[in-house]
This record gives sequence, C-alpha cells and structure tokens, in this order.
Amino acid sequence: MSGQLFLSEIREQPDALRRLLEHRSEFTSVGRALADRAPGFVRLIGHGSSDNSAVYAVYAFGLLTGWTTLRDSISLTVYYEAKLDFAGSAVVALSQSGATPDVVEYVRRARARGALTMGITNEPGSELADAAEVVLPLMAGPERAVAATKTYVNELAAIALLSGSAAGRGDEIAEQLSRTADLMEETVDPLERQVRAVAVPFSYVGRMFVIGRGLEFATAGEIALKLTETCQVMAEPLTATAFAHGPVAALDPLFPVWTIASRDESLPAVIDAAAKVRDAGGMLVASGSAAGEIVGADYVLPVPEAPASVLSPLLSVLPGQLLSGALARAKGLDPDRPQGLSKITRAA
Amino acid sequence: MSGQLFLSEIREQPDALRRLLEHRSEFTSVGRALADRAPGFVRLIGHGSSDNSAVYAVYAFGLLTGWTTLRDSISLTVYYEAKLDFAGSAVVALSQSGATPDVVEYVRRARARGALTMGITNEPGSELADAAEVVLPLMAGPERAVAATKTYVNELAAIALLSGSAAGRGDEIAEQLSRTADLMEETVDPLERQVRAVAVPFSYVGRMFVIGRGLEFATAGEIALKLTETCQVMAEPLTATAFAHGPVAALDPLFPVWTIASRDESLPAVIDAAAKVRDAGGMLVASGSAAGEIVGADYVLPVPEAPASVLSPLLSVLPGQLLSGALARAKGLDPDRPQGLSKITRAA
Repeated sequence: MSGQLFLSEIREQPDALRRLLEHRSEFTSVGRALADRAPGFVRLIGHGSSDNSAVYAVYAFGLLTGWTTLRDSISLTVYYEAKLDFAGSAVVALSQSGATPDVVEYVRRARARGALTMGITNEPGSELADAAEVVLPLMAGPERAVAATKTYVNELAAIALLSGSAAGRGDEIAEQLSRTADLMEETVDPLERQVRAVAVPFSYVGRMFVIGRGLEFATAGEIALKLTETCQVMAEPLTATAFAHGPVAALDPLFPVWTIASRDESLPAVIDAAAKVRDAGGMLVASGSAAGEIVGADYVLPVPEAPASVLSPLLSVLPGQLLSGALARAKGLDPDRPQGLSKITRAA
Repeated sequence: MSGQLFLSEIREQPDALRRLLEHRSEFTSVGRALADRAPGFVRLIGHGSSDNSAVYAVYAFGLLTGWTTLRDSISLTVYYEAKLDFAGSAVVALSQSGATPDVVEYVRRARARGALTMGITNEPGSELADAAEVVLPLMAGPERAVAATKTYVNELAAIALLSGSAAGRGDEIAEQLSRTADLMEETVDPLERQVRAVAVPFSYVGRMFVIGRGLEFATAGEIALKLTETCQVMAEPLTATAFAHGPVAALDPLFPVWTIASRDESLPAVIDAAAKVRDAGGMLVASGSAAGEIVGADYVLPVPEAPASVLSPLLSVLPGQLLSGALARAKGLDPDRPQGLSKITRAA
C-alpha cells in the first residue's frame, strides 16, 4: 500500500520522542552552558519542516527564557555576505540530514564570527555536526518517507528541552514531554478514524488556508506543508491577524479554512478568524485542544490538551499529518514519494 | 469605472516618493541618532503590506548597517506577555493608519521596557505617533483604495532612508531614490499595456506561487497579497529555497508561478526555481530587472534596473500592482473595494 512509510513514521512518533528523552542530560548541560553565556539573542535556521520548528523556537525561547529569538535570514549571510555581528548571539541550526549546504555554510560563517553554534540533527556524522560547536541528537531514527513527521516532532521536543533547560526547567519539561508521548500514542488511532471522514470531501480541494497564532503558527506552517507536498493541495499558513489583513477577501464557499485552536492566549484571535470564515461562507475545519470552541465548524479534529501549553504543538500537528496521509490516498497519490521532491534539498 | 482609486494611487507613486524625499532631513537626523545609540538589533512590526515592508527592512538594515533586524512577534509581547528584554534594541513600527491596536500596544510596551521606539505612519496625529518616541512621516497622501500601493512603496523608501542614514549614506540613498521615482514614472505606462495581455489568460487562475529571494522576498509577499486581496487569487509568497522544500510537489501545468528576478546575489536561486517550474510543466511569469534571464518564461514583465540593488524592490512591485488592477477588472471585481476588508484592520 502506498503511504506505508509515511503512516508508520507518524505512528512511531511517541517512541521517537521517548528515544530523544533518553538523551535529556545532553540538552540539560547545553541549556545550562547557553544560560551561562546569556546570549543577546538566539538565531534559528532551517528549511521546510525545520523552518516551522524555528517558528516554534521563537515562542518557546521567548516564553521559557525571555530571550529574543529570530528565524534568521540565511541568504543575508551566505549569499549577500552581509557583515552582521554574530558575537554575543547563539545559533541553533536544524537539519534532519545535517547535509543542507546553505545551512552548513551559514553555521561555518556564524561560528567564525563568534556565535555559539549548535546543530540539532538526526545524523551525528553529518557536515552540520562537523561545522557546529555543539551537536545535539534528534534521535528520531532513520526517516524514510520524504515528507518529515517524526523528525519535526522531535525537533519541537529538542527545542523545548533546550529552552527549558536554559530556563532551569529542564526536568519539568522532560517530564511533561514524557506525558505528551503517552497522549500522542492514545490519540493516533481514534484520530486516524476521524480523518478518513474528512479526506473524502476534501478530495477535490485545490487550495486552503491554515490558520494558527503564536505557538500554533508553527503547526499551521507544518500542516500546510504536509498537505502541499503530499496531497498537491495549495495550503498557505497564515496567522489569524495576517488572514484578516487581506486573504479573507479571497474566500468563497468552496474554499476550506483550517483553524488550529489551542487553549492559550492566542485562542481569541483564532475564534475571531473562524467567525470571519463563517461569515464569508467558507468551509471550516477546527483542530487542536480547543477545537470545540470554534462554533459552527464543518469538521472537528480534536486532540488532548498537552501537559503544558508550550508543548501543545507536538499534539496539534497530528490531525494534519494523519489527514495528509488519508487525503493523499483518497486522491491516488503516494505520500511516501511526492513528485519532484528528494529527501535532502540541495537547492541553494 | 471600478478600480479608479487603486490605479490612480499606483500612478501617484513617483510623486508620493518625491514628497517623502522632501522630508529626508528628518530621516537623516533620526538615522544618526539611531547610529549613536548602536542598537544590538532592530525589531520591525507591521501587518499586511507593512509586514512585507518589514521583510524588506531585514535586508536593507542588514546590508546597509550590518545590524541584525527581525520581524518581531507581536503576539509574544502583546498576548502572551512574554518578558523579553527590550533595552538596547530599537523598534520600527509601520502602520499607514497608525491605528492598528496591537501595533500601538506593542510600541507602548517596548517603550516602557527601554527600547528606542520609532513609528513610521501616514497619520502624524495617530495613536501610533502618540505612542512612539520618534515619529517619521510616510507622506504618501490620503490612501483611499483599500489595498495599499503608494504607502507600501513609501514605507520601503522610508526604511531605505532610515537605514542609509544610520550607515552615513543618507544623501546617496536619497539621490538614488529620486532617480528611482523617475524610473517608476517612465515604467508605468508601458507596463500597464503589457499586463493587460497577461490578465486575460489569468482570469481563471485560482492559485499561484510568487517566488522571490532576499530583498525581493518582500516583493513576492506584496505581489501575492495584492493578487489575493483584489483578485481572489490564492497567491502564496515563497522564497526560492522554501519552494524547493515542498511546494514544488504541488505544481501541475495549470499552476502558474511568478518569479521575481533582480540582478543581485539572489538571482541564481530564482533561476534554479524557475527551471524546476518548467520541469514540472507549470506556467511561468518572470518579472524584475533580470526577467530576461528566466529562460522559457511564458510571460515577461520587465522593469528597469534600480540605481542601487537595495532599491530594486521599489520598482519590482510595479508589475504585480498593475496586474492586480487589470486582473480584477478582467474578473469583474472592484479592486477599490475587496470583499470583507476595511482600511484599518482592528482584529487582534
């Protein structure tokens, strides 16, 4: 059956997360060293799913450590050769393969200019591991499907462990992540049954907005990327606010909008965006731990509440991953091998 | 005729830019004060078109001053109430109306925590002007069309003047901007004729990717936003690299991709992305000063080369603005009044 790899790697996520937690002491010591260094700010880099993890890091570091964290521009340093001052900042480079050329090159330059460079990768023998001063393992095990799932979830967990440890809360976060793995395990089967009912009516959908805010904007990006790469749906991630600043004008009754609703400070903006979708007559999907608060949703894909709201994205991504697999099969596509993609993108 | 306001404001852009240049001394003195303060980094905030201007600022400040510049998260400070350290950083808030509530609230909090706050707005009597320590005028004149055009171009120019002045190059940038206004004036008429030929075959296009890199990623965002809000096309901006990391898999022969090619360090990546589009059989639009380098484009919308490559986005946006107007009319839509939008978005 097509999509076996993709689905089996989604199912493997709780175990992959537990494997990472066995290495928590490495994150604790690097997190402590990072706190001692007290960086002025943290620069995140990564492409594709790793860029969505970088979005998560902006919020995780901001909330847990209070450090300003940015998704840095790779092109400014690698292609434009801008003379940025890297001293006093820390770099976290995310790459499953550790082989993405411009990520590796960015790390080399940042390190030469005095940044504390950390690489988080699934491949400890990779060029990224060689280029970075500190290497942290992703421990996701070999990822054979082209579309990332378990490496994304482990990147989120790695960032939570690192930022939590830097804030002196590494043990608490590790314990909450362990409970998150259990919740993930309990959720996959019932959710897999639920997404089948959504996949059939979505077979003819060509475009979709995926709306999240704050921490869940990472989830919006990752769900949109899964739908785009495995199902040939053009899915665009938007913050609730960006949606109201223009794209709301493109809605019509055949245009589905997926909203990610978690019970935190971002929820009112998402509820407001969902109301705008209903007013425009668009089809509405509600997912997340607060999916029930989205009034009038056509499809509801709830997940349990995470043990800490900063960890909610680890569970919120599940409905999107599972729907991508089911929808690809409903459309006769193979989610294991999307057209035109390879596992390591060597594009500049 | 519908779209009169939108088109007349596009045509007014060279004059609006010249009005701003009359106020260059204000930018020079604020730029100098900023350089004296030597901020650790610069935080940009804005929604919609102003967020695209913020993307431009990351590159303009990076290239001209070498300062790390980020599009900051409004939600982290305003909704999550994260305790970020604002001392030592500078804030540039962009808002045409000066009335966007969460932008104003962010500025108040950043200022209270020690940031040097600057507001760039078309409304000197606005709440933003009141909240920020320093106010710089946009001088675009009243913007009556809902979709922003001249305020976007003047925001780019304001950022170029400010970052250029901070780098001690304010006079040079002002002179180059003045020549850019002349080039813009010469370009509008011939370009308006050219976009008509593209508007008709695009009448049935529902989705599109707009690809830019580096400085021109701002242009990709702004062209995509214009097409989305005025033409109900779902247009998603992507960097050349992000495109290759997933969305390329969604292409088919009916899926147009717009590439923005300028003659700078970002060009090879854009040429590479265009080749991927051709391989996938997608319809290809090439715009920008190096549009001629995109081999096999179905439609070419060239603009003149800007007097300095850092100013190229002021000209590169023109084909997208003009096509949005022409395409909206071809589809029977009124670009002056997109459905579901109002001039000031009060959404949180």
